[in-house]
Amino acid sequence: MHLSEITHPNQLHGLSIQQLEQIARQIREKHLQTVAASGGHLGPGLGVVELTLALYQTLDLDRDRVTWDVGHQAYPHKLITGRYHQFHTLRQKDGVAGYLKRSESPFDHFGAGHASTSISAALGMALARDARGETFKVAAIIGDGALTGGMALEAINHAGHLPKTNLLVVLNDNEMSISPNVGAIPRYLNKLRLSPPVQFLADNLEEQFKHLPFVGDSLSPELGRIKEGMKRLAVPKVGAVFEELGFTYMGPVDGHNIEELITTFRQAHQQTGPVLVHVATVKGKGYEIAERDQVGYHAQSPFNLATGKAIPSSKPKPPSYAKVFGETLLSLARENPKIMGITAAMATGTGLDILQAKLPQQYIDVGIAEQHAVTLAAGMTCEGMRPVVTIYSTFLQRAYDQVVHDVCIQKLPVFFCMDRAGIVGADGPTHQGMYDIAYLRCLPNMVLMAPKDEAELQQMIVTGIEYTDGPIALRYPRGNGYGVPLMDEGWQPLPIGKGEILRHGDDLLLVAYGSMVYPALQVAELLGEHGIAATVVNARFAKPLDTELILPLAQRIGRVVTLEEGCLIGGFGTAIAEALLDNNILVPVTRLGIPDQLVEHATPEQSKATLGLTSAQIAEQLLKLQIVQPAEVSC
Amino acid sequence: MHLSEITHPNQLHGLSIQQLEQIARQIREKHLQTVAASGGHLGPGLGVVELTLALYQTLDLDRDRVTWDVGHQAYPHKLITGRYHQFHTLRQKDGVAGYLKRSESPFDHFGAGHASTSISAALGMALARDARGETFKVAAIIGDGALTGGMALEAINHAGHLPKTNLLVVLNDNEMSISPNVGAIPRYLNKLRLSPPVQFLADNLEEQFKHLPFVGDSLSPELGRIKEGMKRLAVPKVGAVFEELGFTYMGPVDGHNIEELITTFRQAHQQTGPVLVHVATVKGKGYEIAERDQVGYHAQSPFNLATGKAIPSSKPKPPSYAKVFGETLLSLARENPKIMGITAAMATGTGLDILQAKLPQQYIDVGIAEQHAVTLAAGMTCEGMRPVVTIYSTFLQRAYDQVVHDVCIQKLPVFFCMDRAGIVGADGPTHQGMYDIAYLRCLPNMVLMAPKDEAELQQMIVTGIEYTDGPIALRYPRGNGYGVPLMDEGWQPLPIGKGEILRHGDDLLLVAYGSMVYPALQVAELLGEHGIAATVVNARFAKPLDTELILPLAQRIGRVVTLEEGCLIGGFGTAIAEALLDNNILVPVTRLGIPDQLVEHATPEQSKATLGLTSAQIAEQLLKLQIVQPAEVSC
Repeated sequence: MHLSEITHPNQLHGLSIQQLEQIARQIREKHLQTVAASGGHLGPGLGVVELTLALYQTLDLDRDRVTWDVGHQAYPHKLITGRYHQFHTLRQKDGVAGYLKRSESPFDHFGAGHASTSISAALGMALARDARGETFKVAAIIGDGALTGGMALEAINHAGHLPKTNLLVVLNDNEMSISPNVGAIPRYLNKLRLSPPVQFLADNLEEQFKHLPFVGDSLSPELGRIKEGMKRLAVPKVGAVFEELGFTYMGPVDGHNIEELITTFRQAHQQTGPVLVHVATVKGKGYEIAERDQVGYHAQSPFNLATGKAIPSSKPKPPSYAKVFGETLLSLARENPKIMGITAAMATGTGLDILQAKLPQQYIDVGIAEQHAVTLAAGMTCEGMRPVVTIYSTFLQRAYDQVVHDVCIQKLPVFFCMDRAGIVGADGPTHQGMYDIAYLRCLPNMVLMAPKDEAELQQMIVTGIEYTDGPIALRYPRGNGYGVPLMDEGWQPLPIGKGEILRHGDDLLLVAYGSMVYPALQVAELLGEHGIAATVVNARFAKPLDTELILPLAQRIGRVVTLEEGCLIGGFGTAIAEALLDNNILVPVTRLGIPDQLVEHATPEQSKATLGLTSAQIAEQLLKLQIVQPAEVSC
Repeated sequence: MHLSEITHPNQLHGLSIQQLEQIARQIREKHLQTVAASGGHLGPGLGVVELTLALYQTLDLDRDRVTWDVGHQAYPHKLITGRYHQFHTLRQKDGVAGYLKRSESPFDHFGAGHASTSISAALGMALARDARGETFKVAAIIGDGALTGGMALEAINHAGHLPKTNLLVVLNDNEMSISPNVGAIPRYLNKLRLSPPVQFLADNLEEQFKHLPFVGDSLSPELGRIKEGMKRLAVPKVGAVFEELGFTYMGPVDGHNIEELITTFRQAHQQTGPVLVHVATVKGKGYEIAERDQVGYHAQSPFNLATGKAIPSSKPKPPSYAKVFGETLLSLARENPKIMGITAAMATGTGLDILQAKLPQQYIDVGIAEQHAVTLAAGMTCEGMRPVVTIYSTFLQRAYDQVVHDVCIQKLPVFFCMDRAGIVGADGPTHQGMYDIAYLRCLPNMVLMAPKDEAELQQMIVTGIEYTDGPIALRYPRGNGYGVPLMDEGWQPLPIGKGEILRHGDDLLLVAYGSMVYPALQVAELLGEHGIAATVVNARFAKPLDTELILPLAQRIGRVVTLEEGCLIGGFGTAIAEALLDNNILVPVTRLGIPDQLVEHATPEQSKATLGLTSAQIAEQLLKLQIVQPAEVSC
């Protein structure tokens, strides 16, 4: 049987180990070819090929449930659940998603994209099963990185308290999140990896015990405790933490030995209560280049399979926002030892690896632990430091209460730098940075800003560092800047809450925020071709809003269009609308941004076109609205 | 020295154990008298009197830092840090806060109110200290309940990885959060509490080891492992989980023995790296009635000290929203076994204890673990259950990404019941339920509703249970209903997204949401006395908004006032404003609600008066705006 013939994972049942190993090779081949051609996550999937095949050998996926944490390691799962023939469309518009999605397949039992959710979801399914008197199996597969997220630990705490609730947690331990893992839990797991498997040790020691003179005899209390300790050693020594937390620990298992994996999963299914199977895998397994550079090959843009080298894009690109961010912060940090860059396991994605490389003492990676990152930073500000919490817009959602309760309520000067704010492209709905303006704007004491380009990003980084009256949050997009000249000296902070006029015109007021400022200028040009003269304001701040600048312009011009790369509900345009109404300025306002819907995976350009947010589409829409005659419309 | 003379905790230095025990008695007396007179948290503070005195004996609070988790157990701290003479104003307007507050005292090093933040904040201070080359001590005091919150575990994971960063974590283990604790961690702690203290065991066993024949000799590999196991037994057996996670574990210590506590804290300060001191305390210690009923006396309204009985209010009150919620859900759950009530350690506050008492198999307390609660519920919906996540508005902030990522993006029918939405009174800024409308309204697929009274609450509970197209969230206030007749049969769901007109008038449109509907009716009455006829709409839904009802009314009447008990930025009034502008209906809109500021502790009535939100104040404000002549104003 060839992989291409598998449309249902139960077809794997009954295959021999050799046949499964052959399927494993075919999965790796397809996985590699696809990612090399179109980009995507590489290392995570290659590491779990055998794990996936072995687990599915022991499950009936018509009944049993599987939740994969994060979902970027689920490409092998996708390839054996009916998506082989569409797999070449991976992460492309209308193609196979890069993460799990319930709407994509009946075998995607729970969607994912963010880390640390799988055990909670699986336990929910298991409790529902028990409540309904059913008996199917539920398995969660979670990485060692995701296990440091507090939510996963909350789930362990709960599951470990339910000795009758059958639940299998498969710990895919590849010693990495995107970067090498941080924390005491990963270090503990590493120690376990180096231990002999628990089953073997137990068997062997029980034999030894029989020959020790004092075992089983009546003992002094102290010797009784020693005996007790030996029993503990014999069974749960390896994995004691999990055992103490109520789980049956099994492992470590070689994650690339299908036979051993199947045996272990079968044993695990026979246990009552929660079981943790510790599987030692190699990220990037089977592709030597990825095994050697596990950080670099976590995910990849299209690359040459033979050399591993990225296929150069046709023309050189301006630097990414992340790179400009990292280099600017490094420059500032060299001058100011109070600056501390903080990431939650996203050093490379955020550009903070640039700081890490040069000033490691001013860099902290807390692991996948966004809540902790934010309150850690809050604590640092109490002692006069300038922590810079660098985090994707979508992941700051994971620390919302910390932003509210620990930072905003106390008015502590934490500087949030939100990368990937706006439309993120191929990662899809779970990763869109759509909501941050809305969910931060409602918080007292918060300042919000967004740059029009990478040079203004630099100014805003300076602004954020200098601002010590309270929290301040900077949002900027994924991808590349415009190639504008970067600052190299005389860096001055921007005045808080002040925008700028970029273009004058009396027919229409375009007020744009961040990444939509340049498009607004293009829209103004296009409208100009139709004789409509537009003023363009770069708002710079969504909070406080530059009402001194914007309100008189709105009143005079009489027609307002707002542009933002964020959700329309409660967002930047809404801030303008609120300000106008609060000041009783009754003029038509057209708010342009992301409507109240999910944005599916596609290129950012495709997503914007779908949403009608390209400059040409916006200009066309505004022309249709006959926005040039506000005076005639309103009275 | 009498407690009343202590204005600085360093005054405790040098006092004898007997003197400290006397201060402890005085603290208990003052604590009890104050809470009995004016209400507040009782059990938590009484449990940590000796812990506080002993810890502060070993610290210099001019240099050293202390973070208290949650803060409700910090009354003893307050009484010895200069607030004795103001303490009778506890939780009253302009008085001493019920939680910690940096602005209240230089000794409140980090504010609190929500659980699980203290270790992160303390670690931030410790890392800042090390970065700046300073040497002060940092201690976090955290309860066993708060330790099950994921954020605390994230902090443990990080701290345990920093062997050179001195940090003291004092685990105040009283075996309770508000209710008895849930989970494997509390169970593990309970096991530790029953073990002999670690120091004693270690000393004793080391002596024993010397007399064992094979210790120290060359051994077979298996016996080597046994020896290894014995060493592990000797030192970290008690507290192995914390030791494996990089902490030095000390304890358990009797939390009411000042001398033992001081000795242990002194030893702890001499360790390098993170140390956890496990202190076994009794919640309510020293007040027998509270020791016997630890749930009931976690916090109290004014009560008779001799009998422990609550002082009855002068007139009988209508039932609380929480009680109506609990009883209604119980009735529905009896008929529908798919209903599952989920709480994160707030059974009594939310009224879910009513379900727990009668249908324990349809009730889940996950402990202080809001993130897990939400995704657990999401998992349950995948298997056809109807989970009802019952959570205060302010605590849902702790699970924001789970609401976004696991529920809304997947459009799973989780029913959120947000108690204490709006102004909460004495608990103050950390607990105000101000932001939920704003932070939920921006999420695709979410339905938001709020009842005008307790009978409509019942209808909305039915509505939420019946609605299975996606997530739905219900907000309702703290406190008592209006005494309206409750439903007892024929419970019909409300149509989604439909409001109702309660009063007709052509001069003004009042659109109110939830708890502001009755005040809106009062405002309309008051305006009527001035000849202004107002229409009053009970919106019922903030999303989807009943635009079919509201927009034509707004257009016809020409003047809109919105009323809500939530933040004005991005809230309900903003939803109305957005809808009007999106439909190019240019009429004046006055949005009334909570402006962009913190709301300090006070009675809800006092807070509303401060914010200008009483019916009389609103009527007066609207009269001043001359809202009756919209036509003259706009053109």
